[in-house]
Amino acid sequence: MKYNIAVLRGDGIGSEIVEEAIKVLFAIKGMKEKIDLKEYSFGGCAYDKFSHAFPSETKEGVMKADAVLLGAVGGPKWNELPLEKRPESALLSLRKTMEVFCNIRPVKIFDSLKNLSPIKLENRNIDYVIVRELISGIYFGNKNTETIGGEIAAKDEMFYSESQIKRAIDKAIEIASKRNNKITLVDKANVLETSRLWRKVAKEKVRDSKTEIDYMYVDNAAMQVILNPDKFDVIVTSNMFGDIISDESGAIVGSIGLLPSASISESGLGLYEPIHGSAPDIAGKNIANPIGTILSVALLLRYSLKMDIEAEIIEKAVENAINNKILSKDIIGESGFSTCEIGEYIANEV
Amino acid sequence: MKYNIAVLRGDGIGSEIVEEAIKVLFAIKGMKEKIDLKEYSFGGCAYDKFSHAFPSETKEGVMKADAVLLGAVGGPKWNELPLEKRPESALLSLRKTMEVFCNIRPVKIFDSLKNLSPIKLENRNIDYVIVRELISGIYFGNKNTETIGGEIAAKDEMFYSESQIKRAIDKAIEIASKRNNKITLVDKANVLETSRLWRKVAKEKVRDSKTEIDYMYVDNAAMQVILNPDKFDVIVTSNMFGDIISDESGAIVGSIGLLPSASISESGLGLYEPIHGSAPDIAGKNIANPIGTILSVALLLRYSLKMDIEAEIIEKAVENAINNKILSKDIIGESGFSTCEIGEYIANEV
Ligand SMILES: CC(C)[C@H](C(=O)O)[C@@H](O)C(=O)O
Ligand SMILES: CC(C)[C@H](C(=O)O)[C@@H](O)C(=O)O
Repeated sequence: MKYNIAVLRGDGIGSEIVEEAIKVLFAIKGMKEKIDLKEYSFGGCAYDKFSHAFPSETKEGVMKADAVLLGAVGGPKWNELPLEKRPESALLSLRKTMEVFCNIRPVKIFDSLKNLSPIKLENRNIDYVIVRELISGIYFGNKNTETIGGEIAAKDEMFYSESQIKRAIDKAIEIASKRNNKITLVDKANVLETSRLWRKVAKEKVRDSKTEIDYMYVDNAAMQVILNPDKFDVIVTSNMFGDIISDESGAIVGSIGLLPSASISESGLGLYEPIHGSAPDIAGKNIANPIGTILSVALLLRYSLKMDIEAEIIEKAVENAINNKILSKDIIGESGFSTCEIGEYIANEV
Repeated sequence: MKYNIAVLRGDGIGSEIVEEAIKVLFAIKGMKEKIDLKEYSFGGCAYDKFSHAFPSETKEGVMKADAVLLGAVGGPKWNELPLEKRPESALLSLRKTMEVFCNIRPVKIFDSLKNLSPIKLENRNIDYVIVRELISGIYFGNKNTETIGGEIAAKDEMFYSESQIKRAIDKAIEIASKRNNKITLVDKANVLETSRLWRKVAKEKVRDSKTEIDYMYVDNAAMQVILNPDKFDVIVTSNMFGDIISDESGAIVGSIGLLPSASISESGLGLYEPIHGSAPDIAGKNIANPIGTILSVALLLRYSLKMDIEAEIIEKAVENAINNKILSKDIIGESGFSTCEIGEYIANEV
C-alpha cells in the first residue's frame, strides 16, 4: 500500500518550485516505494485548458489522495475574469472541498538569516505558530449585492458555530502542548459577536488542558507582531484575522520565500503549500526560491503521513543549505543560486 | 460668537494629557477670546457616576459643540461589565451620534526620532495618512448569537452602501490632493462583496479627479506597512481593516504616544483624540506622553475650526520640543520629562 500524493503545480513559478520539492522528497531513502505521485491541473492553467480553475478530474484526484502538494496559483492573466472563475476562488473551493479546517503556519527565523528581518530584532528570536481557521467565517458566509433605497449596497456575513471554533482551538492546544503551552486568541471581542463566541469556546477548552491562554484584540496583535514577536508561542484566530496576521508575520521574517504552510482536515488529508504567491514576473527563469515548498513537503510528511523522522531530515537539510548560504537571488543578490541548484543541494543533503 | 469645544477627559491618563493639550491651546494668542471649553463625563468614570459610560448630558453637550476633544477611555476596572455598558461601546456610540464618518490618522515619523522605529528604516521616510471609514461596516452591522441545530452560533454582518463608501473616498481624494495625489484602497476584493463595492465606487470617484489609485489586498497591505511604508501616500479603507492597518502603522513609528487622530463628520463637527489608550498602569504619575493629544488639538483647529495657521503653530512647537529632546520617559528613559514639563515647554514655544 502506497501513499497517494496529489500534486498541483499551479501557475507562475509553481511548476519550478514543486519540481525541486519532489526531487527532495524522493531523495529520502525508500520514499519511492512508499509514495505515488499524481499530477492534476489547478488554477489559471486549468482555466485555460478546461475553462475551470478547479476541474472535476482534479477534484476527484484530490479527494482520493492522502495529501496534496500545491505550488502557487493566479496571475494578472486571470485577474479580469469574473470572481467565481478566478484561481483564488478555486483555492477557496479546494480548501472547502478538502475540509481543511485550519491552516498552520510556522513563523520562524533561521539564526543565520536574522539580518534579513525588516525589524530590529536585536537579541530576540522569532519562533511561533499561527493556527488560522480556514473554511468558515466571513470567507464562506452569505454575501450579496443589491439595490436598497435607490443605491447599491453589499453585505458579507461573518458566521461561526461552536463546533467550527472548537476544532481550531483543539488543534492550537495540541500544537502548543508540544511547544511552550501558551496560546493567544486574536479577536475583536469588543466589537464582534463571533469573537465573543470564540472567547467562550476557547475559555472552556483551555480549562481542561495545561495550556495558558491570553486574549488579544486584532488591532493590538497587528502591533505586537512588530513590537514583541518573541512573546508569541501559538496564535489561534479566525479566517479573516488569520489571513492578515499571518501575512504580516511572514513579512517580519524577511523572506516569504522561506515559509511553508499546512492546511489540515479531521480525516488527516492535508493541503501543503508555500505561503508566497505565483510570482509571474520571475516564472520560468529558474531563480525562484524553492525552500518554502520544500519545507511544505516536510509538513506533509509530518502531518498527513506521520513520518516525523523524514520530516526532520528535510528540515535539517534545509537548515544546512541556509547555513551554507545556498540561497536564491532574492535573498543574497546576484551571487544567489538557481532554483535547481538549491533543490539539488538539499536533495543531496537529505 | 465663540467656538464651543466639548472636552471629555475620560479614564486613566486621559485627564493629565488633556490638561496639557488645553494649556497649549490657550497659549496661542487670542485663543481665550475665541473658544469656550465645556467638560463632560465620558467612559468608565461616567459609568461609575451615572451608571452610563455615555450619559445623556454628555450626549447633549457634544451635539451642541463645534468640536470634541477626547483623552482616552477604558481600563481593567470596567472590563467585566456587559459589553453594551463598557467604555468601548460608549466610544462607538459617540462616533455614531456625532456621525464622524471617517477617521484620519497621519502616520509620520519625526526626523530626529527615526531611531525609535522598530523597523530598519535606513534612508526611508514614513509620511502617509490613513482614512478609515468609521461608522459603518461590520462594527455597526446586524449581529446576533443564537442556538442553531443544537449548538450556539454567532453572526456579524459587514454592510456597506454606496453613499457610505463615497464620502470616505471623497475625503481621501481631498487629502491626497494636498499631498502626492495617490490613494491606495485597502480591501479584500478577492473574497468580499463589500470590498468589490468599495472598488467600484473608488474607481468611479477617481475617474473625475487628478488622483492616482491602486488597490491592495489587506493581507498584502499588512506586509507592505512593514516592508515599504515609504511607498504610501493616502490609504483609504473600511472600518475593520482600518482599525488593524492604522494600529500596525502606529507601531512602525515607534511611539504611539506621539500620534493624533481626527474623526470628522459632514457638518464639520469633529472628534479629536490621541491614538493610544488610557494606560491605567501609569495614570496619575505625571509621566504620560501628552504629544498625541496636543497634536490632536492641532487637527481640531485645522479640520473643525479652519484655523490652519494656529494648527501649524502647535505642530511647529511640538517639532521643536521633539528636536530638543523634551520627551517622556517611555521614549528617552529615566532622563525623560514629566507630562507637565512637556506641556509647559510646548505652551511656551507656541
Ligand atoms: C488568495 C486568497 C483568497 C487567500 C486567502 O485570503 O485566504 C490568500 O491570501 C491566502 O492567505 O492563502
Ligand atoms: C475601542 C475599540 C472599539 C476601537 C475600535 O476598534 O474602533 C479602537 O480600537 C480604535 O481604533 O479606536
